[in-house]
Amino acid sequence: MAAPFRWTVKRLLQQMCTKGRRHHHDTAGASLPYVPRRAVLYCPGNDERKLRKLSTLDVDCAVLDCEDGVALNKKTEARETISRMMAELNLGRTEKCVRVNSVSSGFAEADLQVVLQAEILPPALMLPKVEDTQEVQWMVCEEIRRLAPEVGLHHDGIVFGSDDFCASIGATRTQDAKELLYARQKVVTTAKAFGLQAIDLVYIDYKDVEGLRQQAREGAFMGFTGKQVIHPGQVGAVQEEFSPSQQRVQWAQELIAAFEQHQKEGKGAFTFNGSMIDMPSLKQAQNIVTLSAAMPQK
Amino acid sequence: MAAPFRWTVKRLLQQMCTKGRRHHHDTAGASLPYVPRRAVLYCPGNDERKLRKLSTLDVDCAVLDCEDGVALNKKTEARETISRMMAELNLGRTEKCVRVNSVSSGFAEADLQVVLQAEILPPALMLPKVEDTQEVQWMVCEEIRRLAPEVGLHHDGIVFGSDDFCASIGATRTQDAKELLYARQKVVTTAKAFGLQAIDLVYIDYKDVEGLRQQAREGAFMGFTGKQVIHPGQVGAVQEEFSPSQQRVQWAQELIAAFEQHQKEGKGAFTFNGSMIDMPSLKQAQNIVTLSAAMPQK
Amino acid sequence: MAAPFRWTVKRLLQQMCTKGRRHHHDTAGASLPYVPRRAVLYCPGNDERKLRKLSTLDVDCAVLDCEDGVALNKKTEARETISRMMAELNLGRTEKCVRVNSVSSGFAEADLQVVLQAEILPPALMLPKVEDTQEVQWMVCEEIRRLAPEVGLHHDGIVFGSDDFCASIGATRTQDAKELLYARQKVVTTAKAFGLQAIDLVYIDYKDVEGLRQQAREGAFMGFTGKQVIHPGQVGAVQEEFSPSQQRVQWAQELIAAFEQHQKEGKGAFTFNGSMIDMPSLKQAQNIVTLSAAMPQK
Repeated sequence: MAAPFRWTVKRLLQQMCTKGRRHHHDTAGASLPYVPRRAVLYCPGNDERKLRKLSTLDVDCAVLDCEDGVALNKKTEARETISRMMAELNLGRTEKCVRVNSVSSGFAEADLQVVLQAEILPPALMLPKVEDTQEVQWMVCEEIRRLAPEVGLHHDGIVFGSDDFCASIGATRTQDAKELLYARQKVVTTAKAFGLQAIDLVYIDYKDVEGLRQQAREGAFMGFTGKQVIHPGQVGAVQEEFSPSQQRVQWAQELIAAFEQHQKEGKGAFTFNGSMIDMPSLKQAQNIVTLSAAMPQK
Repeated sequence: MAAPFRWTVKRLLQQMCTKGRRHHHDTAGASLPYVPRRAVLYCPGNDERKLRKLSTLDVDCAVLDCEDGVALNKKTEARETISRMMAELNLGRTEKCVRVNSVSSGFAEADLQVVLQAEILPPALMLPKVEDTQEVQWMVCEEIRRLAPEVGLHHDGIVFGSDDFCASIGATRTQDAKELLYARQKVVTTAKAFGLQAIDLVYIDYKDVEGLRQQAREGAFMGFTGKQVIHPGQVGAVQEEFSPSQQRVQWAQELIAAFEQHQKEGKGAFTFNGSMIDMPSLKQAQNIVTLSAAMPQK
Repeated sequence: MAAPFRWTVKRLLQQMCTKGRRHHHDTAGASLPYVPRRAVLYCPGNDERKLRKLSTLDVDCAVLDCEDGVALNKKTEARETISRMMAELNLGRTEKCVRVNSVSSGFAEADLQVVLQAEILPPALMLPKVEDTQEVQWMVCEEIRRLAPEVGLHHDGIVFGSDDFCASIGATRTQDAKELLYARQKVVTTAKAFGLQAIDLVYIDYKDVEGLRQQAREGAFMGFTGKQVIHPGQVGAVQEEFSPSQQRVQWAQELIAAFEQHQKEGKGAFTFNGSMIDMPSLKQAQNIVTLSAAMPQK
């Protein structure tokens, strides 16, 4: 009976690996700074024009795609374009992440060979449609360990491939995504249990900004750290919704101050803005302040 | 800690076994056609009048019940009536499924002995209130293997016994069944991970057709393949809600055509009716077309 | 992959151990009466004035707290006050439960030493922030077995520490707690699988009685047996919502009578108040009558 959960967790996920990046810890004292991926934007790896436009978007993470965004007859073009653009393309603070094809597609090996022999290595890799832990090991052991022994690649996040998941279980997407509630909350709980970033589902109706904002906010409330986007017009709204608001940061700072004051006075629990506060609320407030400090400056 | 999941998955389930039937595969190339069980109607096995009326209902699956629909003092009558009706009763395209009593009840062995010695074997069996994988093995190994060695019985689906589940965990059913969201979505995810049909909960207020339709639609969106019904008046609405609509089939066919066209043009992702489309959406569209083709003709 | 579930289940839980008390069985024939903990009220163990006020509240379970409700510089005072109050304080029918500090805090050993050497032992203990089964074993083996060999302590319930959970996964609490749906329903399902009481989350906005009632009712519908409260003003409403109403008990009694009548007449399923009724509904009705009989008299 372990299988269905392995399947559930894996099949619906795409996994994100990053080199030289540490994941976010809830606990203080993480040795490397947390780098947010509030919006994760896909861009076809063979579309040089679109790739060049990425520099204008101020997106946290740009995914240079070899997989579903690229037609079968453009796979070679995609991996070679990406490999070249790694050196050429200056995206400023935007992380360049390469999404290779799935292990089961048979294209992943060629993707990795081209991409990992480039002059400049991609700072992050995404392995899609993971069905099995062996697929993760295949990627890390065979190619990465040989080609990049000092790269320090590690597993950094989990990306919920909601449309793959729906296709697998025969579900139909609705406006409020109620049919995905179990899967989304299981993904975020599992990801956080391993200290991984959790990236929420795509909102495919790219003209509906209000719906996008609502779903992004909901995902942030659930504990997701970011969201996949499929259109440049979605980047700003999503990054805003995954950033703690000024009021929220102020609330957190005031709560922390009040907590410390009450501790000195010997009180472990107290009333703050009409709510009863103790240690767990303090930790939530500390999370917000930490997250806020990690946000890129405008 | 494996136990609670085994319990959760099993205790709340009734399992459906079919001989000579293949389960639905999301992947193409299944060797036998997919036989839908959109509505699964229970009928007391001792009620000959009701059993004869089944032929007028055009229901996908009729469950001839030995279990909870039959009073304790009618168990013998039920299994003998069912055994006789297997040969007598012509239900046309309707599948005859026999629900035996649970293993723990002590009645299951007698049920199987009578039913499996009938002139005509039932095309499907349902084992209720499964608490343990051993109960499934008990049924398949002891009786079926001995009596029906060439029958080719296999596990075909999982039926969510929501009222048993509620009684077990002390939950109370509400109109929108929010208290069952976790269980329903866990059942459908687990079932599909094993390529099994997933049959959703009963709607017991049999006069409320609008409520029934809404819950059926919601179940279909979650990925369930059918729904239990307890009244003939529920069959039509449920079978309609679990069939892809004409518009939906047309949408799927157009999407598939557009996808193929874009692949030829070297585009992996494209805009279709205001949504961004790539491979996972194609697979969802293919599912709809496959399902539509499996629907019985009016 | 077992780890995240262990983590999920444990990290978000506080566990409740009781001596000389049996847990509730859904099945009839439990050898000891079920003692409800509809409201579980936290009170700082060092606040003698508040502890004395507990006797006026008619709460099912009062938690004398050594943990988050007590400031770091008051830990010694709390455990000594509690130890003394065990003998002094007469709370009538209210259960006295002592919440020690978490195993990982390093304070739990001192808590137990003081509390278990008191003249009167606490009838119940709560171990918070359990991350691991070893933490439960630590508590039960090292201290309890040595000091209280004939006490008959056993595991009686699970308390969902929702704010700890939110802090751990980075979730944000909303009014309808949608972000906790998966966790709450997983907790109640798992708890009931082991025959344990399940105590639902705290409602921290203690002035909003209507919101409290709604969330309490929802928890009761999900199968929770009680709810944590952090303010005396919440006790009455919560205990009411977790008690079966008079109409509900009457409905249950009538259903049981109708069921028995129909069984005699040889009918296993029948219509009752517009709903189709069979064995699982009977069991739900029996649960309600059993629960109602266990309620304290006003």
